[in-house]
Amino acid sequence: MPAQANVKADLTALLERKDFAALKRYLEPWLPADIAPIISELPVETLAALFRASSRELAATTFAYLEHAGQHKLLKLLNPEQAAALLNALPPDDRTAFLNELPLDVAMQLLSMLTPDEQELAKSLLAYPEHSVGRMMTLDFVAVHPAWTVRQVLDYIREHGYDRETLNLIYVVDEEGRLIDDIRVRRFLLAPPEKLVRDLMDGNFATLAATDDREKALEIFRKYDRVALPVTDEHRKLVGIVTVDDMLDVASAEATEDIQKLGGSEALDEPYTTIALSKMVKKRASWLVVLFLGEMLTATAMSYFEGEIAKAVVLALFVPLVISSGGNAGSQAATLVIRALALGEFRLHDWWRVMRRELAAGLALGLILGAVGFLRIALWSAFSNFYGPHWPLVAATVGVSLVGVVMWGSLMGSMLPLLLKRLGFDPATSSAPFVATLVDVTGLVIYFSVAYGFMRGVLL
Amino acid sequence: MPAQANVKADLTALLERKDFAALKRYLEPWLPADIAPIISELPVETLAALFRASSRELAATTFAYLEHAGQHKLLKLLNPEQAAALLNALPPDDRTAFLNELPLDVAMQLLSMLTPDEQELAKSLLAYPEHSVGRMMTLDFVAVHPAWTVRQVLDYIREHGYDRETLNLIYVVDEEGRLIDDIRVRRFLLAPPEKLVRDLMDGNFATLAATDDREKALEIFRKYDRVALPVTDEHRKLVGIVTVDDMLDVASAEATEDIQKLGGSEALDEPYTTIALSKMVKKRASWLVVLFLGEMLTATAMSYFEGEIAKAVVLALFVPLVISSGGNAGSQAATLVIRALALGEFRLHDWWRVMRRELAAGLALGLILGAVGFLRIALWSAFSNFYGPHWPLVAATVGVSLVGVVMWGSLMGSMLPLLLKRLGFDPATSSAPFVATLVDVTGLVIYFSVAYGFMRGVLL
Repeated sequence: MPAQANVKADLTALLERKDFAALKRYLEPWLPADIAPIISELPVETLAALFRASSRELAATTFAYLEHAGQHKLLKLLNPEQAAALLNALPPDDRTAFLNELPLDVAMQLLSMLTPDEQELAKSLLAYPEHSVGRMMTLDFVAVHPAWTVRQVLDYIREHGYDRETLNLIYVVDEEGRLIDDIRVRRFLLAPPEKLVRDLMDGNFATLAATDDREKALEIFRKYDRVALPVTDEHRKLVGIVTVDDMLDVASAEATEDIQKLGGSEALDEPYTTIALSKMVKKRASWLVVLFLGEMLTATAMSYFEGEIAKAVVLALFVPLVISSGGNAGSQAATLVIRALALGEFRLHDWWRVMRRELAAGLALGLILGAVGFLRIALWSAFSNFYGPHWPLVAATVGVSLVGVVMWGSLMGSMLPLLLKRLGFDPATSSAPFVATLVDVTGLVIYFSVAYGFMRGVLL
Repeated sequence: MPAQANVKADLTALLERKDFAALKRYLEPWLPADIAPIISELPVETLAALFRASSRELAATTFAYLEHAGQHKLLKLLNPEQAAALLNALPPDDRTAFLNELPLDVAMQLLSMLTPDEQELAKSLLAYPEHSVGRMMTLDFVAVHPAWTVRQVLDYIREHGYDRETLNLIYVVDEEGRLIDDIRVRRFLLAPPEKLVRDLMDGNFATLAATDDREKALEIFRKYDRVALPVTDEHRKLVGIVTVDDMLDVASAEATEDIQKLGGSEALDEPYTTIALSKMVKKRASWLVVLFLGEMLTATAMSYFEGEIAKAVVLALFVPLVISSGGNAGSQAATLVIRALALGEFRLHDWWRVMRRELAAGLALGLILGAVGFLRIALWSAFSNFYGPHWPLVAATVGVSLVGVVMWGSLMGSMLPLLLKRLGFDPATSSAPFVATLVDVTGLVIYFSVAYGFMRGVLL
């Protein structure tokens, strides 16, 4: 296979020479999925010429790699027949995603290019809510009736089986089109030709509802370990199937959403590299401002201790250290709990188990950090007069507040996601920065209270 | 179907009555995946009795739901023939995962219960490194030779086709067992019986290497949208296949690892709810201590400004607010960049594009927060004498440092993951807390330098 860099030049040259036989030979050894990303970088005009000369499968695969603007421009460059052929060749779920991004009038105009069957399909797919199973389904399934013989089924597959990878389960529907079973294709290959479908049925099958959210579909796929699942409507009629490769994309999109929320911004819903700067700033600014307003309470809290700081400036030095340790512990706890919730490792009513774990972990972690903090101040003081003659009080204040602040951080970090979920919000909203902000304010109160206890009458 | 709560009681009663016919009728309407999680909560002794009476598929599915300790105990309760039947019925990849958790001598003892074929298979799977494709593969594929006719292929499928969902691609191998093509099963159904396999070949196929890391496999599955991919060894011989449902688990495990690292702890590698407390504390403590040692630099940095704080205690009040804003901006940037890197949205050499974006976003976000901060101090001062007569200087200091700190945070947060990746580390290591710690120290320097500029000769 030629080097990637040359492919674009080679193809452009062949198209200019209009040597379509050589072009066909050139493209033959490539899998569409391998060459489509390279081709998709060609100018739209060259692409239009290429699409006219190459296979529908290559055109459809390449089309999926283009930005929506490029897709739209390309369709305009093709004549109506070519555009219709391309749109008809797109997998229904990709087509739905494309049409969905367009203004409604443009989408309707493109819909009119489809064959009547495909048109009806596209319209029915668009009627399902975003992120629903209905939007992801395809019609590449084979449905048969219980009264058919095995021979009839095999003949039917030969005539109507779609050329996709999903032909391993045959669905059985009743007269009203309601799903009543699924049967592996291999059972038909093994059964005597005159046997009836109903005699192969066991009545065991798993389904998705077209209105199910994609997250729920992902859960069901994880549970049943299937490569495809049938989709039924509210009357239990079979309306399509969803394949597991689409679930990979769902899993990835859901993880991206959670990760971005955990990082303290709204989910971008678009790739980082292509989202408009203004849009990204907006998504990040809203949370930053909320966190900023919350963090302002630290200034208020500290102003209550202004007198103490004036008397013992040394106290101010350790403020960032102490409160950030609480924030870090809280961020760990929140992240672990949010992920465990997302994976279904425990339910809300297990909150007390989580709380017990986090109190124990927080105590252990707090003692470790407290000891490190105490030793650090003691060591420094052994070799210098940096913290003054009262360094044991400073060291004790820092050490003891660390135990309290880290425990408090772990507790808040673990309970906040559960509280948010209980109230019907997304637990991932309790991001690392959010928990840190909450813990900062209370951390200050803990720190200055401990200081007051140790230093009253001495430094304060 | 009976309510979940009753299932366990019902089954226990049927087993005590030894009414195996009724037991069989009771279990019939259930899909193994639905009832296995309920059954798996029964005492091990009851499970052993149930396994003796129920189908192998149910036993194998239920077995996968048990903890490793329960699995081991259960195998001991069954007689050797029953244990061997169960182990032989387990999907090879689940069995590998189970054996892998056991001490080597126990694993070898269990291996000896398998049929010679399954034994050889299990041993060969165990020889592949953890998290490699070899560990996930199964042998449920059908391979044919180019010189066979379509009729021979169909006969072969009838005799040797395994009863799994993966029978939609038939693999073609040469005399040495090297993979040379894959062909959809439907093409055999449609072709004339005397046609040769080689005449159906197009030489286009995608493969995984047995030594590939699971992350790489996930990438390849995402690219080709396949439900199964063939696995080849170093001599290009076909040794197994991997199905996409296993990739769902990989995607989930990889996201969990990244999320836990982003939250500022090591990846737990075990469920949050079942990991030993001591183990979890260890994984969290190491990072907390590192962050704590880093954060100690804030105390050092602040001690340089002790004189300034003593003169203007009001400065200390805003320290947490200013530095945490930088940390929050940095945490956002780091998270977005890490996820974009994981999704392959850009490569390392695009670093300057990311930098330009983050400088622009950081400036915008800094201006927003700076304005909010300035207004807040101005408003408070309009109604009180809280910040003294020099409040405009305080407000200007806070406002201007916020611009600098937020820009700096965005820059550090976005560049650090890229730097880590360049040095060969996991970019997810630059967690939100890690970035916040780094930004805290520099944030202090920015804040006090700005303060010095504005207040020199007035307050300082």
